[in-house]
Formats: sequence, structure tokens, C-alpha cells
Amino acid sequence: MTGTGTADAPRTAGWGAALAEEAARFAALGWMAGTSGNLSVVTDRDPLRLLVTASGLDKGELSARDMVPVDGEGRAVPGTGDSGKPSAEAALHARVVRLTGAGAVVHVHTVAAVAVGRRWPGGVAFRDLEMLKGIGRAAHDETVVLPVIGNSQDMRVLGDRLEAALNPLVPGVVVAGHGLYTWGADLREARRHTEIVEWLLELELAEERGR
Amino acid sequence: MTGTGTADAPRTAGWGAALAEEAARFAALGWMAGTSGNLSVVTDRDPLRLLVTASGLDKGELSARDMVPVDGEGRAVPGTGDSGKPSAEAALHARVVRLTGAGAVVHVHTVAAVAVGRRWPGGVAFRDLEMLKGIGRAAHDETVVLPVIGNSQDMRVLGDRLEAALNPLVPGVVVAGHGLYTWGADLREARRHTEIVEWLLELELAEERGR
Amino acid sequence: MTGTGTADAPRTAGWGAALAEEAARFAALGWMAGTSGNLSVVTDRDPLRLLVTASGLDKGELSARDMVPVDGEGRAVPGTGDSGKPSAEAALHARVVRLTGAGAVVHVHTVAAVAVGRRWPGGVAFRDLEMLKGIGRAAHDETVVLPVIGNSQDMRVLGDRLEAALNPLVPGVVVAGHGLYTWGADLREARRHTEIVEWLLELELAEERGR
Amino acid sequence: MTGTGTADAPRTAGWGAALAEEAARFAALGWMAGTSGNLSVVTDRDPLRLLVTASGLDKGELSARDMVPVDGEGRAVPGTGDSGKPSAEAALHARVVRLTGAGAVVHVHTVAAVAVGRRWPGGVAFRDLEMLKGIGRAAHDETVVLPVIGNSQDMRVLGDRLEAALNPLVPGVVVAGHGLYTWGADLREARRHTEIVEWLLELELAEERGR
Repeated sequence: MTGTGTADAPRTAGWGAALAEEAARFAALGWMAGTSGNLSVVTDRDPLRLLVTASGLDKGELSARDMVPVDGEGRAVPGTGDSGKPSAEAALHARVVRLTGAGAVVHVHTVAAVAVGRRWPGGVAFRDLEMLKGIGRAAHDETVVLPVIGNSQDMRVLGDRLEAALNPLVPGVVVAGHGLYTWGADLREARRHTEIVEWLLELELAEERGR
Repeated sequence: MTGTGTADAPRTAGWGAALAEEAARFAALGWMAGTSGNLSVVTDRDPLRLLVTASGLDKGELSARDMVPVDGEGRAVPGTGDSGKPSAEAALHARVVRLTGAGAVVHVHTVAAVAVGRRWPGGVAFRDLEMLKGIGRAAHDETVVLPVIGNSQDMRVLGDRLEAALNPLVPGVVVAGHGLYTWGADLREARRHTEIVEWLLELELAEERGR
Repeated sequence: MTGTGTADAPRTAGWGAALAEEAARFAALGWMAGTSGNLSVVTDRDPLRLLVTASGLDKGELSARDMVPVDGEGRAVPGTGDSGKPSAEAALHARVVRLTGAGAVVHVHTVAAVAVGRRWPGGVAFRDLEMLKGIGRAAHDETVVLPVIGNSQDMRVLGDRLEAALNPLVPGVVVAGHGLYTWGADLREARRHTEIVEWLLELELAEERGR
Repeated sequence: MTGTGTADAPRTAGWGAALAEEAARFAALGWMAGTSGNLSVVTDRDPLRLLVTASGLDKGELSARDMVPVDGEGRAVPGTGDSGKPSAEAALHARVVRLTGAGAVVHVHTVAAVAVGRRWPGGVAFRDLEMLKGIGRAAHDETVVLPVIGNSQDMRVLGDRLEAALNPLVPGVVVAGHGLYTWGADLREARRHTEIVEWLLELELAEERGR
């Protein structure tokens, strides 16, 4: 059998449902307003294959079929049906996976990420917070910097910036004027990291207001 | 057959259910508190006909029947049953449609729209935000002005202000001390535009607090 | 038949379910945290009878039976079963009804009411807001003052303050350090007034932050 | 019969479901983001036994089985199955129970607790608030101090700080840079206390912003 389309369909059905469920969860929190953002999960490592949410759809109403298989460059895999086109940002998802070994990537547009990123264009520093343990850092005596990178429409430029700014100790990056990328070993860990990074950003916002 | 009532009923039933669903969605977000706001969808172009949510009802509890057919001036279409009276603002919905060619109009009362509109009575400027792509603008190097117009109870005056202030590149207008009008080619696009404009207003509010 | 208990039971069952539904709605918004607040509806005018939510229960989990019939002084009506004891505040509900002719009273503990009440102990002024139409005021050129009264544990004192401060044009009063009382001709109108007054208070809070 | 596992299983099944329900409730409010926090309930007093939520799981998706029986030191009770390992913080839950006689303990990570705790490291004072009645204090003329203690990864140190700072009149403590501990006679009272303390913290945050 040479075509991968029909063979891949059953293999990705479970991933598609899981992606749809995660997307609905983030959309309900207002983190994927106006069809923004996208999620991906690694379905194969060799060659690298990701399943990524299709662009242009309400992220609270995706079905398991609204997902696009892409290769390690984020290009649609030929012969895998017509479940929509991948977002241009699929290339950045794939690059995050290649750089970090992640199994799932979350990209959301939160107000806190953009507000905090604008205030701290060189990166946001957190310290002495129990929540940092949830992204694998120490709760005490360690300054943890969440990188902030400049936005770009050229995924190669954006990927280069992400690679240059990447903090190997932190599973996330703020894209200024844009949103937040986070990742984890699987969808569940990516969800945990997303919730924690967003919590840290909302704390920063709350404290700014009180200053 | 002379009466349009029974003939229109089946044609508008689907639109009514769609309007009720959209209204419930916005009401759950607190954007239609106290029965405020109204939504409309174009059901015919020649002559122009809109279906608009009836006034005075909780926008989270509308049924498909709680909608009023109106003409191109926002007046109830005679002989189309007694599903309530249209809001006076139906005239503004119709005018937005005539001015912009929109297929659906959303009017919500959000705290952010009123708070930001009071601070920027001449219009709110946004720039260098990825979210601007969702309303068809550039994410970089373009200043996008969301118009703010003064409120009025006279729909002709309000419509003249909207026409004078309209930014053909932006599918929305803030009415000072009142709320937000947004629109799109259909209900789905109007929803996307509404979510994005509200997101921009909430970002502005978050950044004001931190200044 | 002399006892009113069994006779009243069927008459109040519908009111009880309606109260439970309204309470769940407000609780889900965080306005009745920690079992706080109470709702009432007038079931008879002569003699005056109200059905009021029982105290001490989670307001998001009330059933139709968790309501207490009270008289025009807010005292439990003897012989009407043991559905719990009325809150001491039932006396204030009854007084609001006697003063205003309302058919339903809502008392919620919102953060915005307490925060704004502390800042404006003499009353909060609103002006030039479309939302004011929803409580029967003008959207333009009229300053509308929401009274703020000092808190007390003596319902007679609190009632006297409410009577002295009452703005006959506004269906609500903030109790400083406590919460919000609103009312309407029926539960539906009381809900609308509650949502609008809370919206106004949240707007005030949003604008304070931006100053 | 020597093993307690099978004997305990039916006794703790009801407690497990109740804990799962409470956890889902707090998770939906965003108070247990990223699998953070934990809840416990006392199932036996002599010897002391608690059932505590397992660590590492999404607190919005627990089942009745995702709970760990621990002893009065917070150590897993041998022979009680493999429902996961208790959080190290189970030792603090047990200590709160020993110190206060509580029947249930709630530990959540709220943004408000961390933001307010950072601003008031010596404790947060509240006064003249009706909500204080919900934690057993006076609504007038009494200053109520919610203790704030320094965070530590050593549960003995953290427990000593909690014991030293404990206000016998207040069923809660903020752990700086970490979150909130609250407790009550049973899960229902612990929920009420949690909602009220969080409400107080959110009020403080709202008032800070307006200053």
C-alpha cells in the first residue's frame, strides 16, 4: 500500500478527537477568540508527522475531522484527504517539536500574554512561586525567564527568533503582540504547562495593576 | 397568496434558531446583560429584509420565534405575525447593512467598549497586533482605528454619525456610553469580528490598568 | 381549614422553583459566594406574603423546597412547614416590598458593589449611559444616583436607612461593606435590574482602574 | 482480616466522590490550574485518617478513585491500594486537621491569594464587611487578620509557620508565593470558607487597583 491517506485516517481519529476537546477547553476560557490559535500533536516521529487544527474555524466547535496532517516543515501531507488547510503557523509548531522534542504544542491568544509581553519585551522574570514547579522549575531562589520574541509573518524568521530566545528550562514563549506558545511531552502536559504559564501571566497583570 | 406571514415563517425558522444560538453565546459572556443588545441577519436582499431579535427579552433565553422581520428601514414587516416588536435599533442594523453590505450585525453592551470609548472619544487606535488579521487588517506597521461615535436616541442621527465615522477597513464601531456594533458577511463572520474587537478592547483596558 | 401549611404548599411550589433557578443563575456568576445573599418573591399582597430563600444553603444548589414563607415583617409564617429559617434579612426584603411595591427582591454580594460602595459612600452617580434605560432612566443628560447606605445588623436601622436614602427613580441600593439590593415588578424584572446595576458598578470599577 | 484495603474501599467511596465533585467545582473557577492544589476530608479520628486528592492529575477530571488514604502525618496508609501517591502537602493537610479539628481542608492556587499575599506579607486585615460573618467573625468593628506565611518545600517548616501564625478566629492562611489553605468542619463548610476568603482577597485586589 503506497497511499497514506486511508491508512492514516483511523490512526489519527483518536488524536483528532483529543485535539478538538483541548481546543474547546481553551476556547471556553476565551484564549482562542475569533478562531485564533492552533493546537498540534505529534503522531509520528520518523518521519515527523503532526496533526494540527485547521485554520479559520471556531476553536470551540471543532470535530475530530477538522485537523490537518502535516510534515516536519508544517506542510500538508499529500493524499491525506481534504480536512482543510493547515495554518501557516503549523511550520512553527513543527519547529518547536524539532527543537524541544515536544509531543504536543499549544498556541493561544490570551490578553494577558499580549499585555505582559508588551511591557516586558525582553522576557518576563518570575521568582519564588510554587506554580513554577508545575513547569519543572524551583519554587524558591531561582529566577525563571519566560522569553518574549518579536512577531513576524515569516515563519522562518519567527522560528529563528524562537530558537535564539528559547529557554531550555521553560516550555513556553510569548510572541509579542500575538500570543503564547507552550508545549509538553503530550497533550495533557502541554495543557498543564499552558494553564501554568497563563496563570503566571495573569498574576503579573494583577500585580502590575496594584503597583 | 398575498400575505407574506405564513410564507416567510418556514424561510426564517432556520435564521431564528441561528440568531437565538448566537445571542445565547454572547449573553453567557455577559455582553448582553439585562436584555440589552440585539442581533440581526439578512434574509433577503431585494427587497432588503432582516430578521432581528425582539426587544425586552433575556438574550440568553430566546427561541427561534423571538425574532422580528424588518425591512430596509428597520420597520416591522406587516403581516409577518406577532413575534414582538423590533428594537428601535433595528433601523441602525438595517443602515449598517445598507452601508457595508454585511449579512449579519451584532450589537452588544460590553463594559470594555464603554470604558475604552469614554477614554478615547475620537476613536481607538490599535497597531502591531496579530489579532488584527482576524478583522482583515495587517498584523504589522498599520495603525487601525476603531471609530467611536456619540450616542443618540434618534436612529437617523446615530446612523449619520456611524456613516460619517465608518472606517471601511474595520467591521465595527463603538457607540460611546452605549456599546459596540460589529458585522460580517454572515453570522459566523460577525461572531468572529465581535470576539476580536472585544478582545482588542479588553487588551486596551488591561494595558490602561498597568500604565 | 385553618392551617395554611398544606394549602400554601402547592401555591408556592412554582415560586420556589423560580427562586431556585434565579439563585443558581446569580450563584454561577459568583454573586452569591459562600451561601451569601437571598432572593424573594411576593406571593400574596393582602396580607403581604413573600417566599424567601432559606439561609445557610449554597445558593447554587437550592431546590424549590428550600424557601421560607414570611409575612410583611419578614417573620416565618407559622404552620407552613419546616423548610428552614428565613434570613434576618427577610425583614429588609419585606420592607423593600412595602416601600416600593416590588414583586421580587434580589440581594447579592458582589465584589463590585462593595468596592464601589467604599469609594462612594454618599452614592454613586451615573450619567450618559444607554444601560440606564434598562432601569427606566434616561440615556442622556440625567444624573442617576445609586444610593449607598451604611450597613447594620439591626434590620430596623438598615430599613430606616434604606427608606431615607431610597431614590424612587432607581430600583436598587448598595449597602456599604455588604452588597446590593435590587428589585422589580417580578422576578424577571428584578433579574434585569440586578444585571444592569451590577454592569454599572463593574463599569465604574473598570474606569477607576484606568484613571 | 489484616489488610485494610478492601475494608476501607467502600467506606471511602462516598468521600472520594464528594472530593472529586468539590475539586471539579474549584477547578472550573480556575483555582486549581495546571493540576495544582489538593483537597482532603477526614474519614476517621482515631486513628486519624484523611482521604486526599492524588497529585499530578487534572483537578477538574478526578474520579472517586483518584484519592489516597493518609494517616495523621500525611503518609499513605499501607495496604490501601494504588490510587496514586499523596502530595507532599498531605502532611500539611493532616497538620491543619490536628491543629484546628477541621473535618475538611482545601488548598487552592488563586491569583488573588498570591498577589495579595505578596503585598501584605505580614497578614491581610479586613474590617467592616458583612462577608466576615460567613467565616464566623463580626461584620462591624472587628479587624480580622488573615495570616500570610512564607512558603517552604519542607512540610515540617511550613507546618510550624502555619501553627505559629494561625489565627484561631480565621479558618484560613495564605502561603506567600503559593496559594491558600482553608478548612471547615466538613467539605461543605470548607467550601463556604474558601469562597468567602477568596471573595475577600478579590475585593482587596479590586480596591488596590482603584487606589
